[in-house]
Amino acid sequence: MIVITSNKASEERIGELVQLIEKHGVKAHVSKGEDRTVIGIIGQADPVLAEQLRQTSGVEQVVKISKSYKLASRDFHPANTVIKIKGVEIGGDELVVMGGPCAVETPEQIDEIARLVKAAGGQVLRGGAFKPRTGPYSFQGVGVEGLIMMAEAGEKHGLLTITEVMTPEYVDVCAEHADILQVGTRNMQNFDLLRKLGTIQTPVLLKRGFSSTYDELLNAAEYILAGGNPNVMLCERGIRTFESYTRNTLDLAAIPVLKQLSHLPVISDPSHGTGRRELVEPMTKASVAAGADGLIIEMHTDPDNSMTGDGVQSLFPDQFAKLLADLEKLSPLCGKTFNTKKEPILV
Amino acid sequence: MIVITSNKASEERIGELVQLIEKHGVKAHVSKGEDRTVIGIIGQADPVLAEQLRQTSGVEQVVKISKSYKLASRDFHPANTVIKIKGVEIGGDELVVMGGPCAVETPEQIDEIARLVKAAGGQVLRGGAFKPRTGPYSFQGVGVEGLIMMAEAGEKHGLLTITEVMTPEYVDVCAEHADILQVGTRNMQNFDLLRKLGTIQTPVLLKRGFSSTYDELLNAAEYILAGGNPNVMLCERGIRTFESYTRNTLDLAAIPVLKQLSHLPVISDPSHGTGRRELVEPMTKASVAAGADGLIIEMHTDPDNSMTGDGVQSLFPDQFAKLLADLEKLSPLCGKTFNTKKEPILV
Amino acid sequence: MIVITSNKASEERIGELVQLIEKHGVKAHVSKGEDRTVIGIIGQADPVLAEQLRQTSGVEQVVKISKSYKLASRDFHPANTVIKIKGVEIGGDELVVMGGPCAVETPEQIDEIARLVKAAGGQVLRGGAFKPRTGPYSFQGVGVEGLIMMAEAGEKHGLLTITEVMTPEYVDVCAEHADILQVGTRNMQNFDLLRKLGTIQTPVLLKRGFSSTYDELLNAAEYILAGGNPNVMLCERGIRTFESYTRNTLDLAAIPVLKQLSHLPVISDPSHGTGRRELVEPMTKASVAAGADGLIIEMHTDPDNSMTGDGVQSLFPDQFAKLLADLEKLSPLCGKTFNTKKEPILV
Amino acid sequence: MIVITSNKASEERIGELVQLIEKHGVKAHVSKGEDRTVIGIIGQADPVLAEQLRQTSGVEQVVKISKSYKLASRDFHPANTVIKIKGVEIGGDELVVMGGPCAVETPEQIDEIARLVKAAGGQVLRGGAFKPRTGPYSFQGVGVEGLIMMAEAGEKHGLLTITEVMTPEYVDVCAEHADILQVGTRNMQNFDLLRKLGTIQTPVLLKRGFSSTYDELLNAAEYILAGGNPNVMLCERGIRTFESYTRNTLDLAAIPVLKQLSHLPVISDPSHGTGRRELVEPMTKASVAAGADGLIIEMHTDPDNSMTGDGVQSLFPDQFAKLLADLEKLSPLCGKTFNTKKEPILV
Repeated sequence: MIVITSNKASEERIGELVQLIEKHGVKAHVSKGEDRTVIGIIGQADPVLAEQLRQTSGVEQVVKISKSYKLASRDFHPANTVIKIKGVEIGGDELVVMGGPCAVETPEQIDEIARLVKAAGGQVLRGGAFKPRTGPYSFQGVGVEGLIMMAEAGEKHGLLTITEVMTPEYVDVCAEHADILQVGTRNMQNFDLLRKLGTIQTPVLLKRGFSSTYDELLNAAEYILAGGNPNVMLCERGIRTFESYTRNTLDLAAIPVLKQLSHLPVISDPSHGTGRRELVEPMTKASVAAGADGLIIEMHTDPDNSMTGDGVQSLFPDQFAKLLADLEKLSPLCGKTFNTKKEPILV
Repeated sequence: MIVITSNKASEERIGELVQLIEKHGVKAHVSKGEDRTVIGIIGQADPVLAEQLRQTSGVEQVVKISKSYKLASRDFHPANTVIKIKGVEIGGDELVVMGGPCAVETPEQIDEIARLVKAAGGQVLRGGAFKPRTGPYSFQGVGVEGLIMMAEAGEKHGLLTITEVMTPEYVDVCAEHADILQVGTRNMQNFDLLRKLGTIQTPVLLKRGFSSTYDELLNAAEYILAGGNPNVMLCERGIRTFESYTRNTLDLAAIPVLKQLSHLPVISDPSHGTGRRELVEPMTKASVAAGADGLIIEMHTDPDNSMTGDGVQSLFPDQFAKLLADLEKLSPLCGKTFNTKKEPILV
Repeated sequence: MIVITSNKASEERIGELVQLIEKHGVKAHVSKGEDRTVIGIIGQADPVLAEQLRQTSGVEQVVKISKSYKLASRDFHPANTVIKIKGVEIGGDELVVMGGPCAVETPEQIDEIARLVKAAGGQVLRGGAFKPRTGPYSFQGVGVEGLIMMAEAGEKHGLLTITEVMTPEYVDVCAEHADILQVGTRNMQNFDLLRKLGTIQTPVLLKRGFSSTYDELLNAAEYILAGGNPNVMLCERGIRTFESYTRNTLDLAAIPVLKQLSHLPVISDPSHGTGRRELVEPMTKASVAAGADGLIIEMHTDPDNSMTGDGVQSLFPDQFAKLLADLEKLSPLCGKTFNTKKEPILV
Repeated sequence: MIVITSNKASEERIGELVQLIEKHGVKAHVSKGEDRTVIGIIGQADPVLAEQLRQTSGVEQVVKISKSYKLASRDFHPANTVIKIKGVEIGGDELVVMGGPCAVETPEQIDEIARLVKAAGGQVLRGGAFKPRTGPYSFQGVGVEGLIMMAEAGEKHGLLTITEVMTPEYVDVCAEHADILQVGTRNMQNFDLLRKLGTIQTPVLLKRGFSSTYDELLNAAEYILAGGNPNVMLCERGIRTFESYTRNTLDLAAIPVLKQLSHLPVISDPSHGTGRRELVEPMTKASVAAGADGLIIEMHTDPDNSMTGDGVQSLFPDQFAKLLADLEKLSPLCGKTFNTKKEPILV
């Protein structure tokens, strides 16, 4: 950590800063420049110190050199984390495709979609039973029954399942029925939820907040990891910018950046990332080319009548199948394998 | 609601759209233009229809004319909402100032700060017992004990109290000890929390998400109002932009906009809105000039040693007192009254 | 165009709006809804009318149905524009790679880099002679001499050349020496410059403003096209967002969106789009997968000593050559061809 | 300047970095930390060095301690700059109000508006003769004739005049007819224009780019100051954010920040900053409360028929007069004076 003093800091004030720093059991190293003095802090300072210094008079800037997250960092864990679930490996050689509707609606709907996801070569069935909605009058999901419908469809067709959990009290029931729990973009900094997810071992897909930095995403992952759950995957799903033609701006640079800063698998969500069906195919391919470990893609048999209105970004089944066939060819050029004809997973 | 068809929509497709619309019990009114056809929907359409249409082939754009929130809207409730709590009226003639530390630390700290808030003319004591923190290794608040310390300090000095609640399961205990519950910026779309707050009558200060639109804020308020709690106040606390010199960009236009769209009181938070102590005074005055009903301002007796690191944006007690004295003069020119010498509130 | 009246507009006011509209030689079509009235405008309204209406009392919203640009629109020109320059086709089957330094420095530097671009399979040599710099004390480019150095290097090695032009008075001299003129991100709305470029036939690469929407980019292109120069290519080079880890956020969805809205070729700039060398390779591949017609990539023989400080985003020559070899394999899966062993262009 | 090495930098690499630094005539001061080494640079380094270091292998971060602008900085020039033009002082005790239409249309229009600006107490007449427009088919201004019309109206009514200049070649003619030249938001980084403005003495109002940081604005001012023109005032006019209800987000914290970082006068533009007439009054008052030296406000006698469509943000004359009367009362509480009954300026 480096402390840069303001150009008005007196000798005396600098002496006090050194004292304040050394009270925390670290060493201060003073370099006087022409108009400012720089104090280097040697040793492992506790995070409160940085915060205190930043607000202290006489200090102009505090530069952290070490990162605020540790367990999520590649410095700490150089090898890729590979999350193994019933024969599927996420973060390894194989590209993982998660497909399905925005929301689980009926047993027939989810069964038919599961069949189509499997037939196209996907490994994971996605579907929301609890839905976060901007307004209170929109459809809020079918609840626990939806979890059961989805678990049955996954088991029948040999697919893993992923579903969103929105509040700590539902973590256990969701974990009972689903293979992967998703934290949505609005909950990335719902710290009570993150802490609860740290107490179980079920893998978690943590979506980036739509206005969160890479650093904040990795700190959110750190909450889960620090709690004791090492099975975290990160998901880029688009950020909010001034451009309103697309629903979000899918920030694909997040993929190589997160792979570099962290050892955790990185998944891309081109459906929410664009909000427009016709952009899902090019952005899926671009995600793979950028190095994604997997994709989460909305598909619906009847998007014009989906219950959430997210149908506008859902692929039709034939588009989904065509896209996965293309990924089979593209993946080997991007460091991954993908085989649309794999045997069903033994769930 | 207005539906604009794409320039390739056939007569037949338009006929199908009309059928789809009229199935929802509303009337479709077709106007053919040179290259596009416009369908006006007459009557109260349910929100799912807009979503369905938006994703239907042949539709280029759906323009909502009515707003998606109702109870929060000034159309629905033309008079200002005034929230009365033990003799303090929020949203009425009087400017309301909430002051205090970022976090409650010790009984002595909160008692002394309460004394200073009261002496300066403030009406509400703010202080966090549960703190949302970006990383898991930062100080997370003192918890329920902090609630009790703050309640005692408030009662002793004749101040109302406000504190942040982060998760549904803590709503009841927070409501037992505090007069106003605050929903933080990261929880504005924590829908389970909003729903829970709708089941009680304790006033809620709802902070705008740091990347949320006015419309999303009003929809979040709608969750609480629709649940049955009419005592909601809105809070502008700065949004995230590309400018990083300030911690956030305090969007003061939010104040007149929200007052116009809604009947709910609007509070400004210049401390988080700027993140820099030296900007709190000018932005407080600007908030009052823009029409705010109240302010929430961080003040600390020893900001250099605060436990959260938000001290950098906390005023010193003498700055706080000087600012409130200035507000006493400024308020009458801005449609409000503010009296620093009021009798203590009978709590 | 659709006009939505406010809920307070009287019958009389609506009658006046109809009169105002019909004065412009178009027809108004009135639909009365429960609380608002909608007026559809039939016929080709002049743009001033929309602006007048938007500001008229009684009007709540004006929705434009037709786009404000015409010549740049794919509706107007359904086939792809292919720009042919001395045997290179931009916007056709072949992927086009433009490579070179941020700034031309010396004849030796640009000659050596040109040799390496050609050897790797690139078709165009990029290099700045006039540099836009945030501060006045930074290196501002070598000027006209740089144009000459670059033209010689391009001719010798069989490469086209592209350079940035910053002001109308330098358009002619730049066009004399370079094959393609680049409009930088800060000049996308320098309308005098755009107008001047409309008067010549030299192809123009128009970079998206770092905070410009797709619509504004296409309107900027329209200035050049409307002036009489049909040879415009669009360039996505990253937008400004809250994320500061990367220099910009490369918005790859812009590629399929612009290809859909417009017939003009679309080029991606992963160097400025990320500002970090290690991200150039994955984002180049992602750009091709997203459907780019070409790339503009910074490469330098000695990036640690480049004169502009953009070296941090410049590839080393061997990285550049390796990347182009990879593109040769990737392109056929993305609808393009790319051959690193092509004969030199006969300039 | 501080250089932080990556945790893989060898002793040898650090030695090379020190050599590189000392080649530039400054001293390097090495502090070894646990995993990184920090090199402090003592002395006045040239800006190219920072850029070189940032891109050098072994370097993780370069922190500039000195600012990149000098003449614009309050460190360099502690006292406020007061620009005196024919008896009006901008940046001094008096609040300065610039009012008028978006565009000059006819001699009658500008004469009548000038009369109303003067009657209300304004000191400067604003009006555009050359208009920057997003699309080529919109009204582009009346040109040089408009300059003459405005100069006559200003002289007749005792008002200074301000007008926008868009390109270097029009600087001289604009300066001949107007008292203040305005650089618009799209031209803040039109460096050729800034350089040209540095060669004259006419005062310049430099608008912040709609996505420019404070630092970039001050660097743009530095171009003009470094050229030899000390008469620069800065203008906050709203930035582009995700919120689309307002045309821009008026960043009022810019006012105290710029006053603190720089000695130049700061003007606020609530008309473009909000894009909505009903927000101009509260945001004007908020600007004054935040410490603005002046305002630039659109006013039109017939906004419903203005030629640019900016009428929607123009005040009616009676609103303008009422607002200035309110400012007369508000200013003394905000450290300024404003007298609506002043004698005409002797032009």
